[in-house]
Amino acid sequence: MAGSSVKPTPLLKDELDIVIPTIRNLDFLEMWRPFFEQYHLIIVQDGDPSKIIKVPDGFDYELYNRNDINRILGPKASCISFKDSACRCFGYMVSKKKYIYTIDDDCFVAKNPSGELINALEQHIKNLLSPSTPFFFNTLYDPYREGADFVRGYPFSLREGAPTAVSHGLWLNIPDYDAPTQLVKPRERNTRYVDAVLTVPKGTLFPMCGMNLGFNRELIGPAMYFGLMGDGQPIGRYDDMWAGWCMKVICDHMGWGVKTGLPYIWHSKASNPFVNLKKEYKGIYWQEDLIPFFQSAVLPKECVTVQQCYIELAKQVKEKLGKVDPYFIKLADAMVTWIEAWDELNSSGEKSSKSTSK
Amino acid sequence: MAGSSVKPTPLLKDELDIVIPTIRNLDFLEMWRPFFEQYHLIIVQDGDPSKIIKVPDGFDYELYNRNDINRILGPKASCISFKDSACRCFGYMVSKKKYIYTIDDDCFVAKNPSGELINALEQHIKNLLSPSTPFFFNTLYDPYREGADFVRGYPFSLREGAPTAVSHGLWLNIPDYDAPTQLVKPRERNTRYVDAVLTVPKGTLFPMCGMNLGFNRELIGPAMYFGLMGDGQPIGRYDDMWAGWCMKVICDHMGWGVKTGLPYIWHSKASNPFVNLKKEYKGIYWQEDLIPFFQSAVLPKECVTVQQCYIELAKQVKEKLGKVDPYFIKLADAMVTWIEAWDELNSSGEKSSKSTSK
Repeated sequence: MAGSSVKPTPLLKDELDIVIPTIRNLDFLEMWRPFFEQYHLIIVQDGDPSKIIKVPDGFDYELYNRNDINRILGPKASCISFKDSACRCFGYMVSKKKYIYTIDDDCFVAKNPSGELINALEQHIKNLLSPSTPFFFNTLYDPYREGADFVRGYPFSLREGAPTAVSHGLWLNIPDYDAPTQLVKPRERNTRYVDAVLTVPKGTLFPMCGMNLGFNRELIGPAMYFGLMGDGQPIGRYDDMWAGWCMKVICDHMGWGVKTGLPYIWHSKASNPFVNLKKEYKGIYWQEDLIPFFQSAVLPKECVTVQQCYIELAKQVKEKLGKVDPYFIKLADAMVTWIEAWDELNSSGEKSSKSTSK
Repeated sequence: MAGSSVKPTPLLKDELDIVIPTIRNLDFLEMWRPFFEQYHLIIVQDGDPSKIIKVPDGFDYELYNRNDINRILGPKASCISFKDSACRCFGYMVSKKKYIYTIDDDCFVAKNPSGELINALEQHIKNLLSPSTPFFFNTLYDPYREGADFVRGYPFSLREGAPTAVSHGLWLNIPDYDAPTQLVKPRERNTRYVDAVLTVPKGTLFPMCGMNLGFNRELIGPAMYFGLMGDGQPIGRYDDMWAGWCMKVICDHMGWGVKTGLPYIWHSKASNPFVNLKKEYKGIYWQEDLIPFFQSAVLPKECVTVQQCYIELAKQVKEKLGKVDPYFIKLADAMVTWIEAWDELNSSGEKSSKSTSK
């Protein structure tokens, strides 16, 4: 192959969509060109649908704006958030691929400590294609990685691991802090490259950030609902958190794994902490009730599909979190609508129409 | 202070003992001199008590051989293993300090990726003096470390953390593999320096290795019993695992944290895999029962001290693991003896006598 100009086929080329929520021209894709160009992009345009989003030449994409979402989902479009990056989950719904990678448009290619550009997507794919270890902790981190293995004392019956549903990547430069922490530590930057991937153990919740996230859509897609955020809602910036907590409870029930760690992307710009505080402040006190709720949530054995699990969770949200705030009753209803819409779009072999294609 | 020849007082100088189990002269201490010399060492001599163990000049130490252990504990000495590094836990018992650091005599000073020698003890002390986060996972690892914090979505009520009971350090070069893995991968070396400390979440078990281990003796000391191993026992190389599983169940019950990750030491030499296989093989199949046992072990609310927890755990070991093998009945009795001996040595203000002191 030496001297050949044939590009190697990228991993999972025909099995993975990249989902990008945005309100602006996607110039950030230029830096990702060598890594993303051979994949298909699903762009979910947030905000004013009359605005034209420019996508750099050479990318294969479909783009949905609010009008498309309303047309495709009809009344069920109410479950998709507006003026919030939570709208990205519409892209998960219309994809027909096995895997999804989603990334924010203010994220750039990071460098590893040797100065090499990090192919984040490739690392996510590695994470998703190798098993997880949710039932017992391996002190040398990912035992399936080259040069590593299970350590002494790790039960042999658990060494086959579990299917991996989610790969949660991290961020160099601007860390994913909440508004109070942003306000207190405006200059803090994440400069530490931790060369590890690890499985979040069964029974443990974590804060899932949607900035740099891969998942197996065939396994866990219907649980990746990013909730009701933004326009007309009392809360923002909890879309990915909500999805992460629901998803984790369901993965634990189904016996699937969730990884966090590598790959890093370069998060270029901190969002405005004052704006964030306004979006977050209800979430900051609600989460004190949400975490105990999700920590103690139990799904009955009868729930054997993600859809069944999710509908059951919606029921429990309504019953138990409805007392915290009426917002959660509305959210629980939207969770049910989301599953109905998911099944509608995903039961037939038909591909939903789109406004722009290349 | 520039130009001063006064050495800075090492952290916790009067509050920490270093415990070393050994069968040979402690030449390895030469490399540790700059880091250990100002601390007190407790050396537990394993095997033939007539053999003289040489300790390099300048170290402050006490040394116990089998005769000392028998003399100090009387009939209760039966709970301390012979011809196995499990004997090290005798050192935890006779110490009167708040913290313990224990290290194997084939472990040397490792270097970080910048080529600097790693002060492992200093990192353990940092780990032990800062809180843990067992109740929720922080994706940027230790939130108390400089340059890090809790990420968005981490409940504020949990940000004070929990007291840290144990700091489990790792190993570069020879990884801590079981005999089958050693046999299959004789050339594997751990070369990956993962720059992270993380809390093993509540409810999650892990394989605790005794090679490079710090703990708060005042908090968790009575649970750090390394079991019956070696001479006259059907098993070896599960001493630290046993302690780790018992300790973790008790820390989870008490609301304390256990950290793993940094610091690394340089593990110089793999032990003989054939000898290890002989020691381990019963453990390898027993652990398939042990892990579910410890994963489902529940301690009643009435257990409010580590001693009470440990006695209760011994009872459950006898009841439930006694069916797996009669060895566990003997082990459960030894667990009770250990607590009796611990309380005997630790209730009065008297310091137990020793054979050698410097």
